[in-house]
Amino acid sequence: MYEGPVQDLIDELGRLPGVGPKSAQRIAFHLLAAEPADISRLQEVLQKVKEGVVFCQVCGNVSEEQTCRICRDARRDPTVVCVVEEPKDVVAVEKTREFKGRYHVLGGALDPLSGIGPDQLRIRELLGRIGSDDIKEIILATDPNTEGEATATYLVRMLRDFPGLTVTRLASGLPMGGDLEFADELTLGRALSGRRTV
Amino acid sequence: MYEGPVQDLIDELGRLPGVGPKSAQRIAFHLLAAEPADISRLQEVLQKVKEGVVFCQVCGNVSEEQTCRICRDARRDPTVVCVVEEPKDVVAVEKTREFKGRYHVLGGALDPLSGIGPDQLRIRELLGRIGSDDIKEIILATDPNTEGEATATYLVRMLRDFPGLTVTRLASGLPMGGDLEFADELTLGRALSGRRTV
Repeated sequence: MYEGPVQDLIDELGRLPGVGPKSAQRIAFHLLAAEPADISRLQEVLQKVKEGVVFCQVCGNVSEEQTCRICRDARRDPTVVCVVEEPKDVVAVEKTREFKGRYHVLGGALDPLSGIGPDQLRIRELLGRIGSDDIKEIILATDPNTEGEATATYLVRMLRDFPGLTVTRLASGLPMGGDLEFADELTLGRALSGRRTV
Repeated sequence: MYEGPVQDLIDELGRLPGVGPKSAQRIAFHLLAAEPADISRLQEVLQKVKEGVVFCQVCGNVSEEQTCRICRDARRDPTVVCVVEEPKDVVAVEKTREFKGRYHVLGGALDPLSGIGPDQLRIRELLGRIGSDDIKEIILATDPNTEGEATATYLVRMLRDFPGLTVTRLASGLPMGGDLEFADELTLGRALSGRRTV
């Protein structure tokens, strides 16, 4: 609909996830009116990402160096490892300020229909860490959906044979701040079966 | 929350209009997994936009050449000019396939609180076109909001003195496909006062 580079920009922006045609148009006209320095900054970070983001050799999280900040932090408990699907899950757990251990990022969840099996995830690396480091507890913090549950179940089976290793799973139940009547049956069922004495 | 270029990318994306922190994170991880060629294309269109998009010397629309496709098109009626605020309004009117005349893009609407007066809009250029070209009708197609209405009122006053020039305004009324009961009072009032014999 537009001539020249404006339409090209709208097309490229529209390819990004969650950016519809209207948003793409709005962003394009915002950039059209932006300072060249602002656009340059965006180009530069794209360049850095294109050149390759480093992933931590230990846990698989995005990192600035070969080993990430959390894995280098001696104050973090190396005996407890929280296993998550993606780097953004590390951020989510960190925000709780409840966890002082280390992480292991799988890089996804088991999803045979999309061709993601155990070999596509960083499961071998996890088993290696458990074998060499002094890990006492593995917290399975994969998503509470079909793929995440399947991944957790698979990992439980793989980790069963390590002597002295405790494997835990994040609690399922009612989200805080919610209404009981609006909870779906599955969540309410999990909350019931997971009830605790107080 | 993230280390290195990933956080920089999330920050830069979060500065774009309509992109919140969650969307920025999602787009960043999409780009992290994207092909280098895809990122290069995005960088290239940003470069072109940074180097400057050409605006049509006649109507002010975004253009590939000094004069835009519509202004160069001899089949388009040069005696009718539709005055809009932004290039995206040209696209909106073009989509109707109802209009065969030319356009004039003001570059915004009068908004004294934001420091946008008549001199910040391409009003002088519009008066120049009316003075030199053989224009018989000006259709005021500014937005039906406070700024757009103020701009239309201002233009009506400026265009009053041109002999033989008809000045029209887009009809206000009920949007098609809507329910009468859900129309706001202002829209319904406009629809009433603008009623036509059928």
